[in-house]
Amino acid sequence: MALGGNALGESPADQLAAVRKASVMLADMIAQGHELIISHGNGPQVGMIHAAMDLAACSRPGFPAFPFAECAAMSQGYIGYHLQQALGEELRRRSLPGEVLSVVTQVVVDPADPAFQDPRKPIGRFFSREAAEVLAAEKGWIFREDAGRGYRRVIPSPAPLEIVEQAAISRMLSDGITVIAAGGGGIPVIRTESGLQGVDAVIDKDRSCERLAEELGAELILFLTAVDRVCLNFRQPDERPLTVMSAAEARAYIRQGHFAPGSMLPKVEAGLRFAESAPGRRAVITSLEQAPAALTRGAGTWLGG
Amino acid sequence: MALGGNALGESPADQLAAVRKASVMLADMIAQGHELIISHGNGPQVGMIHAAMDLAACSRPGFPAFPFAECAAMSQGYIGYHLQQALGEELRRRSLPGEVLSVVTQVVVDPADPAFQDPRKPIGRFFSREAAEVLAAEKGWIFREDAGRGYRRVIPSPAPLEIVEQAAISRMLSDGITVIAAGGGGIPVIRTESGLQGVDAVIDKDRSCERLAEELGAELILFLTAVDRVCLNFRQPDERPLTVMSAAEARAYIRQGHFAPGSMLPKVEAGLRFAESAPGRRAVITSLEQAPAALTRGAGTWLGG
Repeated sequence: MALGGNALGESPADQLAAVRKASVMLADMIAQGHELIISHGNGPQVGMIHAAMDLAACSRPGFPAFPFAECAAMSQGYIGYHLQQALGEELRRRSLPGEVLSVVTQVVVDPADPAFQDPRKPIGRFFSREAAEVLAAEKGWIFREDAGRGYRRVIPSPAPLEIVEQAAISRMLSDGITVIAAGGGGIPVIRTESGLQGVDAVIDKDRSCERLAEELGAELILFLTAVDRVCLNFRQPDERPLTVMSAAEARAYIRQGHFAPGSMLPKVEAGLRFAESAPGRRAVITSLEQAPAALTRGAGTWLGG
Repeated sequence: MALGGNALGESPADQLAAVRKASVMLADMIAQGHELIISHGNGPQVGMIHAAMDLAACSRPGFPAFPFAECAAMSQGYIGYHLQQALGEELRRRSLPGEVLSVVTQVVVDPADPAFQDPRKPIGRFFSREAAEVLAAEKGWIFREDAGRGYRRVIPSPAPLEIVEQAAISRMLSDGITVIAAGGGGIPVIRTESGLQGVDAVIDKDRSCERLAEELGAELILFLTAVDRVCLNFRQPDERPLTVMSAAEARAYIRQGHFAPGSMLPKVEAGLRFAESAPGRRAVITSLEQAPAALTRGAGTWLGG
């Protein structure tokens, strides 16, 4: 399952409260007999970490610069700690068996991915045009104007090719461990002649989650988001929630522009890819609150039949 | 084994270079047939992370404060990422089997530990007396004057009681996974009525490593430090390196003040505790470079016979 980073709140206290609430639902699913692997977003969290490290590097003599991959690794430790603690406690409270463990996860991307030529993922805060030009010249960062709110740094969002730690994660699952992995879409790395190397990029967490689910031979992906069901004509008078969506329907709805890029679209696309990757595979898009009900088809949008 | 945080360097580039060098030795030991669990310090790294998060919280409106436990979790992600990448690549290069995985690790401490009444572990940068007084009043931090260099915040360094993730780590080891765990001494947590809760503290990594080794039923702990062997009269004209040290000798040398607190002393104490925890257990103190040779008694100081 993929948990949204925005749902985790802004401060450590908010995040702890959010993961405790989430853990009740996650434990419900474990109690239903499901083996879970949990992935999560990290947008606001890695944004804060990167901003703080950059501020320190700019204002403290001798403070080193921390590239984006290292900040992503920090966010995996930070969010993984809270999730692992909260879910572990919830399982203990209910005397449910099982261990919960967060693992540092690297995801290989292709240096020839077209995203590297056309960075589009905004990160961090807004700058004035002048400040953005100075930073662009100084650090080689690329900026884009963001809906009249100022300039934001953009970094590439390449496709995930391979989860480096997949084999070990697979063994942990076989051992009955609930694994938290590929947080924030994973730490982006490329293969070079001298081995793996971190890159300034961010991988969409829904796509990494799909990649991981395929590699692990999962039966189902659950994309948890802000709405209970995928809707056609979302937030319009003729909004229509969907209980089920075939692959052919999903493709048609995508073409018709029903799903917002960066929000519902990557979930539907990743769900479609997973449903078509092998017979019997399904994806469900729903809210955290409806997740246990969705697993018995009482809620959510089932993709793939 | 316990790797020192100071040996990991100051910047991400330094740290990557250090862990790549360390990985050659670690892979040598894996090639010798040892099952490794790797713990590491995080002093300079968590200091930088905490300083950056604190700087952002003080200077950016709305930026939340990040407690020490959360910063420790970030440091586990950051250092774990580099170690896991470097050792994984070294194993692949030599076609050695095995996966390497860093896990978020919480370590339980006792809220009644006397360390909470007498915080002594300095963290972060130096402040003037005036600045320290302001911060003490504002945030409730405790400061100590540090050898004429100014005032530094001190936090408690309580004893590790229990590794929360021990059972899961144990299963990973049985699966042949090389585990990186309890980084920085672990994320310090206390047990409360509502479950585990992070605390502002730092656990000595040598003590946590010892605790973990006991719980996992390890045969040997390797404490890696800046010197090849433990010395009596260290850095004096009559300095004498030790190849072996019985438990009785270790106790006598500790009483005679041969070992520096915060440096060699916690290693000798943790090694002594481990050697006495069950028959046949041994601890070795040596440098990273001498570690593979130390395992065959060609280098290092063996504690416990």
